Amino acid sequence: MARAFDLLGQRWTGVVIGNLSEGPAGFGELARAIDGISDSMLSTRLTALTQAGLITRTVEEGPPVSVAYALTDAGKALIPALSRISQWAEEYLPRR
Amino acid sequence: MARAFDLLGQRWTGVVIGNLSEGPAGFGELARAIDGISDSMLSTRLTALTQAGLITRTVEEGPPVSVAYALTDAGKALIPALSRISQWAEEYLPRR
Repeated sequence: MARAFDLLGQRWTGVVIGNLSEGPAGFGELARAIDGISDSMLSTRLTALTQAGLITRTVEEGPPVSVAYALTDAGKALIPALSRISQWAEEYLPRR
Repeated sequence: MARAFDLLGQRWTGVVIGNLSEGPAGFGELARAIDGISDSMLSTRLTALTQAGLITRTVEEGPPVSVAYALTDAGKALIPALSRISQWAEEYLPRR
């Protein structure tokens, strides 16, 4: 559990996974979809999630070269659990 | 979601909640049940969880005075979500 929350507790992780739950996306697409995230933060999160085995990074040879990020089976399996945590927070955590 | 994980991402939080899911417990009881936690860390976590509204701290006038910690409804509502995250971690996160 501690291992899971070490990863999931990082800001934006849940939001990035949530965005990819709708299908693979490129870097620019994610950057536009996630309000308030900087490019360097998005890049850091994508790298961490790739290393943890939750997403894949696929380079499509161009031109133009493009990169697509997609959830792995492990990443997809996390969606229902994240959504329960999210519902719980909505109902019980006071808004700041 | 970020708010939830700020709280849940702290080490021991899930373990403390898990222990209280079996019923109210005193400080010493929790300290003995949670392997490897220091008294000061346990105290810090209990305070944070109390402030977040997930547990209550009840002082029973003595003698001897005793203190009991118990999950609130918000704390109890979190158990199924934590257990899904935990199952997911068990299945998909590599052991360190």
